[in-house]
Amino acid sequence: MAKKRKHAEKTPTGFRLGPGWTGEVTELDPGATPGFSGKKADGKKLLATRDSTLDDLQERLYAAHHEQDDGRSVLLIVQGMDTSGKGGIMRHVVGDVDPQGVDITAFKDPTRAEKRHDFLWRIRKHAPEPGMIGVFDRSQYEDVLIHRVHGWADAAEIRRRYTAINAFEKELTDAGTVIVKVMLHISAQEQGERLMERLERPDKHWKFSPGDVDERAHWDAYMDAYTRALRATSTENAPWTVVPADRKWYARIAVQQLLLDALRGIDPQWPTADFDVDEQIARLRETMD
Amino acid sequence: MAKKRKHAEKTPTGFRLGPGWTGEVTELDPGATPGFSGKKADGKKLLATRDSTLDDLQERLYAAHHEQDDGRSVLLIVQGMDTSGKGGIMRHVVGDVDPQGVDITAFKDPTRAEKRHDFLWRIRKHAPEPGMIGVFDRSQYEDVLIHRVHGWADAAEIRRRYTAINAFEKELTDAGTVIVKVMLHISAQEQGERLMERLERPDKHWKFSPGDVDERAHWDAYMDAYTRALRATSTENAPWTVVPADRKWYARIAVQQLLLDALRGIDPQWPTADFDVDEQIARLRETMD
Repeated sequence: MAKKRKHAEKTPTGFRLGPGWTGEVTELDPGATPGFSGKKADGKKLLATRDSTLDDLQERLYAAHHEQDDGRSVLLIVQGMDTSGKGGIMRHVVGDVDPQGVDITAFKDPTRAEKRHDFLWRIRKHAPEPGMIGVFDRSQYEDVLIHRVHGWADAAEIRRRYTAINAFEKELTDAGTVIVKVMLHISAQEQGERLMERLERPDKHWKFSPGDVDERAHWDAYMDAYTRALRATSTENAPWTVVPADRKWYARIAVQQLLLDALRGIDPQWPTADFDVDEQIARLRETMD
Repeated sequence: MAKKRKHAEKTPTGFRLGPGWTGEVTELDPGATPGFSGKKADGKKLLATRDSTLDDLQERLYAAHHEQDDGRSVLLIVQGMDTSGKGGIMRHVVGDVDPQGVDITAFKDPTRAEKRHDFLWRIRKHAPEPGMIGVFDRSQYEDVLIHRVHGWADAAEIRRRYTAINAFEKELTDAGTVIVKVMLHISAQEQGERLMERLERPDKHWKFSPGDVDERAHWDAYMDAYTRALRATSTENAPWTVVPADRKWYARIAVQQLLLDALRGIDPQWPTADFDVDEQIARLRETMD
Protein backbone atom coordinates (compact mmCIF):
# COMPACT_ATOMS: atom_id res chain seq x y z
CA MET A 1 0.00 0.00 0.00
CA ALA A 2 1.35 3.39 -0.95
CA LYS A 3 2.26 5.63 1.95
CA LYS A 4 -0.23 8.50 2.23
CA ARG A 5 1.40 11.81 1.38
CA LYS A 6 1.13 14.56 3.95
CA HIS A 7 0.40 17.90 2.38
CA ALA A 8 1.12 21.35 3.76
CA GLU A 9 -1.83 23.13 5.36
CA LYS A 10 -2.71 26.55 3.92
CA THR A 11 -3.20 29.05 6.73
CA PRO A 12 -3.26 32.88 6.89
CA THR A 13 0.39 32.59 7.83
CA GLY A 14 1.59 30.63 4.84
CA PHE A 15 2.01 26.88 4.38
CA ARG A 16 2.16 25.14 7.72
CA LEU A 17 4.03 21.87 7.68
CA GLY A 18 2.83 19.29 10.17
CA PRO A 19 5.07 16.57 11.59
CA GLY A 20 5.58 13.86 9.00
CA TRP A 21 5.25 16.30 6.08
CA THR A 22 6.37 14.55 2.92
CA GLY A 23 6.07 17.33 0.36
CA GLU A 24 8.62 19.31 -1.63
CA VAL A 25 9.39 22.97 -1.04
CA THR A 26 9.22 23.50 -4.80
CA GLU A 27 5.54 22.45 -4.83
CA LEU A 28 4.70 25.51 -2.72
CA ASP A 29 4.07 28.71 -4.69
CA PRO A 30 6.35 31.59 -3.59
CA GLY A 31 3.94 34.07 -5.18
CA ALA A 32 0.85 32.87 -3.29
CA THR A 33 -0.94 34.73 -0.51
CA PRO A 34 -2.64 31.84 1.33
CA GLY A 35 -5.47 32.83 3.65
CA PHE A 36 -5.40 36.47 2.56
CA SER A 37 -7.69 37.76 -0.14
CA GLY A 38 -6.69 41.44 0.04
CA LYS A 39 -4.20 43.39 -2.03
CA LYS A 40 -0.89 45.02 -1.13
CA ALA A 41 -2.52 48.15 0.33
CA ASP A 42 -4.82 46.01 2.49
CA GLY A 43 -1.82 44.04 3.70
CA LYS A 44 0.08 47.16 4.65
CA LYS A 45 -2.93 48.52 6.51
CA LEU A 46 -3.37 45.23 8.38
CA LEU A 47 0.31 45.24 9.39
CA ALA A 48 -0.01 48.72 10.88
CA THR A 49 -3.34 47.97 12.58
CA ARG A 50 -2.09 44.89 14.36
CA ASP A 51 1.05 46.61 15.65
CA SER A 52 -0.62 47.75 18.84
CA THR A 53 -2.04 44.27 19.56
CA LEU A 54 1.44 42.79 19.17
CA ASP A 55 2.83 45.56 21.37
CA ASP A 56 0.31 44.87 24.10
CA LEU A 57 0.92 41.11 24.08
CA GLN A 58 4.68 41.60 24.11
CA GLU A 59 4.48 43.93 27.10
CA ARG A 60 2.36 41.39 28.97
CA LEU A 61 4.88 38.64 28.17
CA TYR A 62 7.68 40.84 29.49
CA ALA A 63 5.75 41.95 32.56
CA ALA A 64 4.63 38.43 33.43
CA HIS A 65 8.23 37.37 33.84
CA HIS A 66 9.66 40.55 35.25
CA GLU A 67 12.47 39.61 37.62
CA GLN A 68 11.56 35.94 37.47
CA ASP A 69 13.97 33.28 36.32
CA ASP A 70 11.46 30.88 34.87
CA GLY A 71 8.65 31.35 32.47
CA ARG A 72 7.61 31.68 28.91
CA SER A 73 9.36 33.17 25.89
CA VAL A 74 9.11 33.14 22.11
CA LEU A 75 11.82 32.23 19.62
CA LEU A 76 11.29 33.27 16.01
CA ILE A 77 13.70 31.55 13.61
CA VAL A 78 13.90 33.11 10.15
CA GLN A 79 15.58 31.24 7.30
CA GLY A 80 15.57 31.99 3.60
CA MET A 81 17.70 32.41 0.51
CA ASP A 82 19.62 35.66 0.01
CA THR A 83 17.24 38.58 -0.67
CA SER A 84 14.26 36.62 0.66
CA GLY A 85 13.43 39.54 2.94
CA LYS A 86 14.89 38.57 6.32
CA GLY A 87 16.07 42.13 6.91
CA GLY A 88 12.62 43.50 6.09
CA ILE A 89 11.05 41.17 8.65
CA MET A 90 13.52 42.41 11.27
CA ARG A 91 12.84 46.01 10.40
CA HIS A 92 9.11 46.10 9.74
CA VAL A 93 7.70 43.31 11.90
CA VAL A 94 10.15 42.73 14.75
CA GLY A 95 11.14 46.41 14.62
CA ASP A 96 7.66 47.50 15.57
CA VAL A 97 7.86 45.76 18.92
CA ASP A 98 9.37 47.56 21.96
CA PRO A 99 13.11 46.91 21.50
CA GLN A 100 13.50 46.30 25.23
CA GLY A 101 11.54 43.07 24.87
CA VAL A 102 13.29 41.74 21.77
CA ASP A 103 16.67 40.12 21.33
CA ILE A 104 17.77 39.71 17.69
CA THR A 105 20.78 37.58 16.79
CA ALA A 106 22.11 37.54 13.23
CA PHE A 107 24.17 34.40 12.75
CA LYS A 108 26.96 35.14 10.27
CA ASP A 109 29.81 32.86 9.26
CA PRO A 110 31.04 31.25 12.47
CA THR A 111 34.25 32.64 13.96
CA ARG A 112 37.30 30.44 14.48
CA ALA A 113 36.40 30.00 18.14
CA GLU A 114 32.86 29.00 17.22
CA LYS A 115 34.10 26.50 14.64
CA ARG A 116 36.05 24.65 17.33
CA HIS A 117 32.76 23.85 19.08
CA ASP A 118 29.73 21.80 18.11
CA PHE A 119 27.46 23.77 15.76
CA LEU A 120 24.82 24.31 18.47
CA TRP A 121 27.30 25.89 20.92
CA ARG A 122 26.91 29.43 19.63
CA ILE A 123 23.17 28.97 19.13
CA ARG A 124 22.43 27.91 22.72
CA LYS A 125 23.87 31.12 24.10
CA HIS A 126 21.18 33.14 22.34
CA ALA A 127 18.10 31.19 23.40
CA PRO A 128 15.66 33.84 24.68
CA GLU A 129 15.44 34.76 28.35
CA PRO A 130 12.03 34.38 30.03
CA GLY A 131 9.70 37.19 29.03
CA MET A 132 11.64 37.94 25.85
CA ILE A 133 11.03 37.48 22.15
CA GLY A 134 14.24 36.05 20.72
CA VAL A 135 14.77 36.31 16.97
CA PHE A 136 17.30 34.37 14.89
CA ASP A 137 18.24 35.88 11.53
CA ARG A 138 19.65 32.63 10.11
CA SER A 139 20.26 29.91 12.65
CA GLN A 140 21.32 26.34 13.37
CA TYR A 141 19.69 25.45 10.05
CA GLU A 142 22.61 26.92 8.09
CA ASP A 143 24.52 23.85 9.28
CA VAL A 144 22.16 21.51 7.44
CA LEU A 145 21.52 23.74 4.40
CA ILE A 146 24.66 25.42 3.07
CA HIS A 147 26.71 22.59 4.61
CA ARG A 148 24.76 20.00 2.61
CA VAL A 149 24.80 22.02 -0.61
CA HIS A 150 28.58 22.51 -0.49
CA GLY A 151 29.33 19.08 0.93
CA TRP A 152 30.96 20.50 4.07
CA ALA A 153 29.26 17.72 5.99
CA ASP A 154 28.38 14.22 4.77
CA ALA A 155 24.88 12.71 4.84
CA ALA A 156 25.44 10.89 8.13
CA GLU A 157 26.63 14.09 9.82
CA ILE A 158 23.65 16.02 8.44
CA ARG A 159 21.32 13.36 9.90
CA ARG A 160 23.11 13.65 13.25
CA ARG A 161 22.52 17.39 13.14
CA TYR A 162 18.79 16.98 12.44
CA THR A 163 18.56 14.83 15.56
CA ALA A 164 20.60 17.29 17.60
CA ILE A 165 18.43 20.20 16.42
CA ASN A 166 15.22 18.36 17.29
CA ALA A 167 16.54 17.50 20.76
CA PHE A 168 17.67 21.10 21.33
CA GLU A 169 14.34 22.53 20.25
CA LYS A 170 12.49 20.01 22.43
CA GLU A 171 14.54 21.20 25.41
CA LEU A 172 13.50 24.78 24.69
CA THR A 173 9.81 24.08 24.20
CA ASP A 174 9.76 21.87 27.34
CA ALA A 175 11.17 24.84 29.23
CA GLY A 176 8.36 27.11 28.04
CA THR A 177 9.65 28.65 24.81
CA VAL A 178 7.28 28.78 21.87
CA ILE A 179 9.34 28.24 18.71
CA VAL A 180 8.18 29.75 15.42
CA LYS A 181 10.18 28.53 12.42
CA VAL A 182 9.80 30.40 9.17
CA MET A 183 11.23 29.72 5.73
CA LEU A 184 10.86 32.86 3.61
CA HIS A 185 10.21 31.24 0.25
CA ILE A 186 11.09 33.16 -2.92
CA SER A 187 11.46 32.11 -6.53
CA ALA A 188 14.80 32.13 -8.35
CA GLN A 189 13.34 34.72 -10.73
CA GLU A 190 12.40 37.04 -7.88
CA GLN A 191 15.85 36.67 -6.35
CA GLY A 192 17.41 37.62 -9.67
CA GLU A 193 15.34 40.79 -9.78
CA ARG A 194 16.17 41.73 -6.22
CA LEU A 195 19.90 41.21 -6.80
CA MET A 196 19.64 43.30 -9.96
CA GLU A 197 18.10 46.11 -7.93
CA ARG A 198 21.03 45.96 -5.52
CA LEU A 199 23.41 46.27 -8.45
CA GLU A 200 21.52 49.16 -10.00
CA ARG A 201 21.42 51.29 -6.84
CA PRO A 202 24.75 52.59 -5.47
CA ASP A 203 23.23 52.79 -1.98
CA LYS A 204 22.57 49.04 -2.18
CA HIS A 205 25.97 47.92 -3.48
CA TRP A 206 27.17 47.13 0.04
CA LYS A 207 24.49 44.45 0.28
CA PHE A 208 25.81 42.66 -2.83
CA SER A 209 28.71 40.29 -3.18
CA PRO A 210 29.79 38.48 -6.36
CA GLY A 211 29.37 35.23 -4.42
CA ASP A 212 25.61 35.85 -4.48
CA VAL A 213 25.61 35.13 -8.21
CA ASP A 214 27.75 32.01 -7.76
CA GLU A 215 25.29 30.65 -5.23
CA ARG A 216 22.43 30.91 -7.74
CA ALA A 217 23.99 28.02 -9.65
CA HIS A 218 23.13 25.86 -6.63
CA TRP A 219 19.47 26.92 -6.46
CA ASP A 220 18.01 23.44 -7.00
CA ALA A 221 20.41 21.94 -4.49
CA TYR A 222 19.32 24.53 -1.94
CA MET A 223 15.65 23.76 -2.53
CA ASP A 224 16.40 20.06 -2.08
CA ALA A 225 18.33 20.79 1.14
CA TYR A 226 15.37 22.83 2.44
CA THR A 227 12.93 20.05 1.59
CA ARG A 228 15.03 17.49 3.46
CA ALA A 229 15.64 19.74 6.46
CA LEU A 230 12.00 20.77 6.77
CA ARG A 231 10.84 17.15 6.52
CA ALA A 232 13.31 16.08 9.21
CA THR A 233 12.67 18.94 11.65
CA SER A 234 8.97 19.80 11.35
CA THR A 235 8.07 18.39 14.73
CA GLU A 236 4.91 18.51 16.82
CA ASN A 237 6.46 21.02 19.20
CA ALA A 238 8.35 23.10 16.64
CA PRO A 239 6.72 22.93 13.20
CA TRP A 240 7.88 24.89 10.16
CA THR A 241 5.86 27.39 8.21
CA VAL A 242 6.86 28.06 4.61
CA VAL A 243 5.91 31.70 4.04
CA PRO A 244 5.57 32.71 0.39
CA ALA A 245 7.83 35.75 0.12
CA ASP A 246 7.77 36.93 -3.51
CA ARG A 247 5.38 39.59 -2.19
CA LYS A 248 7.18 41.23 0.70
CA TRP A 249 4.00 42.67 2.17
CA TYR A 250 2.42 39.22 2.43
CA ALA A 251 5.48 37.71 4.11
CA ARG A 252 5.40 40.49 6.69
CA ILE A 253 1.76 40.08 7.67
CA ALA A 254 2.21 36.30 7.76
CA VAL A 255 5.16 36.48 10.16
CA GLN A 256 3.37 39.09 12.26
CA GLN A 257 0.39 36.73 12.47
CA LEU A 258 2.68 33.87 13.53
CA LEU A 259 4.07 36.03 16.34
CA LEU A 260 0.55 37.04 17.40
CA ASP A 261 -0.52 33.38 17.43
CA ALA A 262 2.50 32.42 19.53
CA LEU A 263 1.82 35.17 22.08
CA ARG A 264 -1.93 34.47 22.21
CA GLY A 265 -1.12 30.81 22.82
CA ILE A 266 0.93 31.83 25.85
CA ASP A 267 -1.80 34.27 26.92
CA PRO A 268 0.44 36.21 29.32
CA GLN A 269 -1.26 37.99 32.22
CA TRP A 270 -0.31 41.15 34.11
CA PRO A 271 1.30 40.03 37.37
CA THR A 272 -0.59 40.86 40.54
CA ALA A 273 1.03 43.29 42.97
CA ASP A 274 3.11 41.69 45.73
CA PHE A 275 2.49 44.75 47.92
CA ASP A 276 -0.57 46.42 49.47
CA VAL A 277 -1.59 48.99 46.85
CA ASP A 278 -3.59 51.27 49.18
CA GLU A 279 -0.79 51.31 51.72
CA GLN A 280 1.72 52.32 49.05
CA ILE A 281 -0.60 55.04 47.74
CA ALA A 282 -0.80 56.48 51.28
CA ARG A 283 3.00 56.32 51.72
CA LEU A 284 3.54 57.99 48.35
CA ARG A 285 1.03 60.77 49.19
CA GLU A 286 3.09 61.63 52.27
CA THR A 287 6.07 62.41 50.04
CA MET A 288 4.07 64.81 47.89
CA ASP A 289 2.73 68.21 48.82
CA MET B 1 39.30 87.18 41.87
CA ALA B 2 36.17 85.05 41.89
CA LYS B 3 36.25 82.08 39.56
CA LYS B 4 33.93 82.69 36.63
CA ARG B 5 30.94 80.31 36.73
CA LYS B 6 30.33 78.21 33.68
CA HIS B 7 26.67 78.03 32.80
CA ALA B 8 24.87 75.38 30.82
CA GLU B 9 24.18 76.23 27.19
CA LYS B 10 20.55 76.08 26.10
CA THR B 11 20.24 74.12 22.86
CA PRO B 12 17.32 72.45 21.02
CA THR B 13 18.44 69.29 22.78
CA GLY B 14 18.28 70.55 26.35
CA PHE B 15 20.98 72.04 28.55
CA ARG B 16 24.39 71.20 27.20
CA LEU B 17 27.13 71.16 29.82
CA GLY B 18 30.55 72.14 28.57
CA PRO B 19 33.76 70.90 30.19
CA GLY B 20 34.36 72.81 33.40
CA TRP B 21 30.65 73.31 34.04
CA THR B 22 30.19 74.60 37.58
CA GLY B 23 26.41 74.76 37.85
CA GLU B 24 23.88 72.77 39.85
CA VAL B 25 21.43 70.34 38.32
CA THR B 26 18.72 71.89 40.48
CA GLU B 27 19.18 75.23 38.70
CA LEU B 28 17.98 73.65 35.46
CA ASP B 29 14.21 73.62 34.97
CA PRO B 30 12.81 70.09 34.39
CA GLY B 31 9.67 71.63 32.86
CA ALA B 32 11.50 73.74 30.26
CA THR B 33 11.56 73.10 26.52
CA PRO B 34 14.80 74.89 25.53
CA GLY B 35 15.17 75.63 21.85
CA PHE B 36 11.66 74.50 21.01
CA SER B 37 8.78 76.93 20.82
CA GLY B 38 6.09 74.48 19.70
CA LYS B 39 3.53 72.57 21.75
CA LYS B 40 3.09 68.86 22.45
CA ALA B 41 1.36 68.15 19.13
CA ASP B 42 4.16 69.93 17.23
CA GLY B 43 6.72 67.90 19.15
CA LYS B 44 5.02 64.62 18.31
CA LYS B 45 4.82 65.59 14.66
CA LEU B 46 8.48 66.52 14.59
CA LEU B 47 9.44 63.19 16.16
CA ALA B 48 7.58 61.26 13.47
CA THR B 49 8.89 63.45 10.63
CA ARG B 50 12.53 63.02 11.58
CA ASP B 51 12.25 59.23 11.91
CA SER B 52 13.15 58.65 8.30
CA THR B 53 16.18 60.96 8.49
CA LEU B 54 17.44 59.05 11.51
CA ASP B 55 16.73 55.79 9.72
CA ASP B 56 18.71 56.86 6.68
CA LEU B 57 21.71 58.03 8.71
CA GLN B 58 21.70 54.85 10.78
CA GLU B 59 21.67 52.68 7.66
CA ARG B 60 24.61 54.63 6.25
CA LEU B 61 26.51 54.18 9.52
CA TYR B 62 25.85 50.45 9.41
CA ALA B 63 26.67 50.13 5.72
CA ALA B 64 29.87 52.16 6.02
CA HIS B 65 31.30 49.59 8.40
CA HIS B 66 29.78 46.47 6.96
CA GLU B 67 32.22 43.62 7.53
CA GLN B 68 34.94 45.99 8.68
CA ASP B 69 36.57 45.75 12.06
CA ASP B 70 37.32 49.42 12.52
CA GLY B 71 35.21 52.47 12.20
CA ARG B 72 32.68 54.74 13.78
CA SER B 73 29.85 54.04 16.16
CA VAL B 74 27.54 55.93 18.50
CA LEU B 75 26.98 55.29 22.20
CA LEU B 76 23.91 56.85 23.79
CA ILE B 77 24.02 56.76 27.60
CA VAL B 78 20.69 57.46 29.31
CA GLN B 79 20.57 58.21 33.02
CA GLY B 80 17.73 59.54 35.13
CA MET B 81 15.71 59.02 38.27
CA ASP B 82 13.01 56.33 38.36
CA THR B 83 10.08 57.22 36.07
CA SER B 84 12.16 59.84 34.24
CA GLY B 85 11.19 58.21 30.94
CA LYS B 86 14.15 56.00 30.03
CA GLY B 87 11.81 53.27 28.82
CA GLY B 88 9.93 55.74 26.64
CA ILE B 89 13.17 56.86 25.02
CA MET B 90 14.03 53.23 24.27
CA ARG B 91 10.59 52.57 22.85
CA HIS B 92 9.79 55.76 20.96
CA VAL B 93 13.18 57.12 19.89
CA VAL B 94 15.59 54.19 19.78
CA GLY B 95 12.72 51.86 18.87
CA ASP B 96 12.12 53.71 15.62
CA VAL B 97 15.55 52.83 14.30
CA ASP B 98 16.14 49.53 12.45
CA PRO B 99 16.69 47.07 15.33
CA GLN B 100 19.48 45.38 13.36
CA GLY B 101 21.64 48.48 13.85
CA VAL B 102 20.94 49.06 17.52
CA ASP B 103 22.26 47.30 20.60
CA ILE B 104 20.46 48.22 23.84
CA THR B 105 21.86 47.17 27.20
CA ALA B 106 19.83 47.72 30.37
CA PHE B 107 22.20 47.68 33.33
CA LYS B 108 20.35 46.27 36.34
CA ASP B 109 21.81 45.47 39.76
CA PRO B 110 25.15 43.78 39.11
CA THR B 111 25.24 40.01 39.49
CA ARG B 112 27.58 38.33 41.99
CA ALA B 113 30.05 37.59 39.21
CA GLU B 114 29.96 41.23 38.08
CA LYS B 115 30.48 42.47 41.63
CA ARG B 116 33.75 40.55 41.86
CA HIS B 117 35.15 42.69 39.03
CA ASP B 118 35.87 46.40 38.72
CA PHE B 119 32.70 48.38 38.01
CA LEU B 120 33.68 49.00 34.38
CA TRP B 121 34.16 45.29 33.61
CA ARG B 122 30.55 44.63 32.66
CA ILE B 123 30.27 47.98 30.90
CA ARG B 124 33.23 47.45 28.55
CA LYS B 125 31.67 44.31 27.12
CA HIS B 126 28.77 46.33 25.75
CA ALA B 127 30.67 49.14 24.01
CA PRO B 128 29.14 49.34 20.52
CA GLU B 129 30.63 47.49 17.57
CA PRO B 130 31.66 49.58 14.54
CA GLY B 131 28.61 50.63 12.55
CA MET B 132 26.26 50.19 15.49
CA ILE B 133 24.32 52.52 17.76
CA GLY B 134 24.86 51.25 21.29
CA VAL B 135 22.43 52.38 23.96
CA PHE B 136 22.90 52.14 27.72
CA ASP B 137 19.75 52.23 29.84
CA ARG B 138 21.56 53.16 33.08
CA SER B 139 25.32 52.74 32.95
CA GLN B 140 28.66 53.14 34.71
CA TYR B 141 27.19 56.27 36.28
CA GLU B 142 25.10 54.21 38.70
CA ASP B 143 28.41 53.51 40.44
CA VAL B 144 28.92 57.20 41.24
CA LEU B 145 25.25 58.06 41.85
CA ILE B 146 23.40 55.45 43.93
CA HIS B 147 26.76 54.38 45.40
CA ARG B 148 27.41 57.92 46.66
CA VAL B 149 23.85 58.42 47.93
CA HIS B 150 23.87 55.21 49.94
CA GLY B 151 27.51 55.47 50.98
CA TRP B 152 28.45 52.19 49.28
CA ALA B 153 31.67 53.89 48.18
CA ASP B 154 33.59 56.63 50.00
CA ALA B 155 34.51 60.01 48.50
CA ALA B 156 37.99 58.90 47.45
CA GLU B 157 36.62 55.83 45.66
CA ILE B 158 33.99 57.94 43.90
CA ARG B 159 36.77 60.28 42.68
CA ARG B 160 38.75 57.28 41.45
CA ARG B 161 35.68 56.17 39.52
CA TYR B 162 35.23 59.59 37.87
CA THR B 163 38.80 59.32 36.63
CA ALA B 164 38.30 55.75 35.45
CA ILE B 165 35.09 56.71 33.62
CA ASN B 166 36.77 59.65 31.89
CA ALA B 167 39.69 57.45 30.80
CA PHE B 168 37.32 54.76 29.53
CA GLU B 169 35.22 57.23 27.57
CA LYS B 170 38.36 58.81 26.11
CA GLU B 171 39.45 55.37 24.89
CA LEU B 172 36.09 54.94 23.16
CA THR B 173 36.02 58.36 21.52
CA ASP B 174 39.65 57.98 20.39
CA ALA B 175 38.60 54.74 18.71
CA GLY B 176 35.81 56.51 16.79
CA THR B 177 32.76 56.24 19.03
CA VAL B 178 30.64 59.35 19.46
CA ILE B 179 29.34 59.37 23.03
CA VAL B 180 26.03 61.08 23.81
CA LYS B 181 25.34 61.35 27.54
CA VAL B 182 21.86 62.29 28.63
CA MET B 183 20.42 62.97 32.06
CA LEU B 184 16.62 62.83 31.85
CA HIS B 185 15.77 65.53 34.37
CA ILE B 186 12.41 65.39 36.15
CA SER B 187 11.08 67.17 39.23
CA ALA B 188 10.24 65.34 42.45
CA GLN B 189 6.62 66.41 42.00
CA GLU B 190 6.45 64.88 38.51
CA GLN B 191 7.99 61.64 39.79
CA GLY B 192 5.35 61.49 42.52
CA GLU B 193 2.60 61.80 39.93
CA ARG B 194 4.10 59.15 37.67
CA LEU B 195 4.51 56.71 40.57
CA MET B 196 0.91 57.40 41.58
CA GLU B 197 -0.22 56.49 38.07
CA ARG B 198 1.65 53.19 38.34
CA LEU B 199 -0.17 52.47 41.59
CA GLU B 200 -3.56 53.39 40.18
CA ARG B 201 -3.32 51.14 37.11
CA PRO B 202 -3.21 47.36 37.68
CA ASP B 203 -1.38 46.92 34.35
CA LYS B 204 1.41 49.16 35.73
CA HIS B 205 1.80 47.54 39.16
CA TRP B 206 4.66 45.39 37.93
CA LYS B 207 6.68 48.54 37.30
CA PHE B 208 6.32 49.67 40.93
CA SER B 209 8.23 48.59 43.98
CA PRO B 210 7.82 49.92 47.53
CA GLY B 211 11.52 50.81 47.43
CA ASP B 212 10.66 53.52 44.89
CA VAL B 213 8.94 55.48 47.66
CA ASP B 214 11.89 54.96 50.05
CA GLU B 215 14.27 56.37 47.47
CA ARG B 216 12.27 59.61 47.26
CA ALA B 217 13.54 60.47 50.75
CA HIS B 218 17.00 60.74 49.17
CA TRP B 219 15.93 63.07 46.34
CA ASP B 220 18.21 65.98 47.34
CA ALA B 221 21.14 63.65 47.82
CA TYR B 222 20.55 62.24 44.33
CA MET B 223 20.46 65.72 42.81
CA ASP B 224 23.72 66.53 44.60
CA ALA B 225 25.29 63.29 43.36
CA TYR B 226 24.20 64.15 39.79
CA THR B 227 25.65 67.66 40.07
CA ARG B 228 29.01 66.30 41.24
CA ALA B 229 29.11 63.50 38.67
CA LEU B 230 28.15 65.79 35.78
CA ARG B 231 30.75 68.37 36.82
CA ALA B 232 33.46 65.72 37.02
CA THR B 233 32.65 63.91 33.79
CA SER B 234 31.44 66.58 31.34
CA THR B 235 34.52 66.40 29.17
CA GLU B 236 35.42 67.90 25.82
CA ASN B 237 35.05 64.54 24.10
CA ALA B 238 32.02 63.29 26.03
CA PRO B 239 29.90 66.17 27.36
CA TRP B 240 26.62 65.73 29.21
CA THR B 241 23.27 67.10 28.17
CA VAL B 242 20.64 67.61 30.84
CA VAL B 243 17.35 67.02 29.04
CA PRO B 244 14.28 68.47 30.80
CA ALA B 245 11.93 65.50 31.04
CA ASP B 246 8.80 66.61 32.86
CA ARG B 247 7.29 66.76 29.38
CA LYS B 248 7.91 63.36 27.84
CA TRP B 249 7.38 64.59 24.30
CA TYR B 250 10.12 67.21 24.68
CA ALA B 251 12.62 64.72 26.12
CA ARG B 252 11.99 62.45 23.14
CA ILE B 253 12.59 65.05 20.45
CA ALA B 254 15.65 66.30 22.33
CA VAL B 255 17.25 62.85 22.48
CA GLN B 256 16.31 62.19 18.86
CA GLN B 257 18.03 65.47 17.94
CA LEU B 258 21.14 64.44 19.88
CA LEU B 259 21.27 61.17 17.94
CA LEU B 260 20.80 63.03 14.65
CA ASP B 261 23.60 65.45 15.58
CA ALA B 262 25.91 62.57 16.48
CA LEU B 263 25.25 60.79 13.18
CA ARG B 264 25.52 63.98 11.11
CA GLY B 265 28.86 64.65 12.80
CA ILE B 266 30.09 61.27 11.62
CA ASP B 267 28.57 61.89 8.17
CA PRO B 268 28.72 58.22 7.12
CA GLN B 269 28.95 57.52 3.39
CA TRP B 270 27.70 54.57 1.36
CA PRO B 271 30.72 52.36 0.70
CA THR B 272 31.86 52.09 -2.91
CA ALA B 273 31.59 48.69 -4.57
CA ASP B 274 34.74 46.53 -4.40
CA PHE B 275 33.60 44.73 -7.57
CA ASP B 276 32.95 45.75 -11.18
CA VAL B 277 29.25 46.59 -11.22
CA ASP B 278 28.70 46.14 -14.99
CA GLU B 279 30.49 42.82 -14.97
CA GLN B 280 28.28 41.57 -12.13
CA ILE B 281 25.13 42.80 -13.88
CA ALA B 282 26.15 40.79 -16.97
CA ARG B 283 26.90 37.67 -14.87
CA LEU B 284 23.57 38.00 -13.06
CA ARG B 285 21.68 38.40 -16.39
CA GLU B 286 23.07 35.05 -17.52
CA THR B 287 21.37 33.35 -14.58
CA MET B 288 17.97 34.83 -15.47
CA ASP B 289 15.77 33.97 -18.41
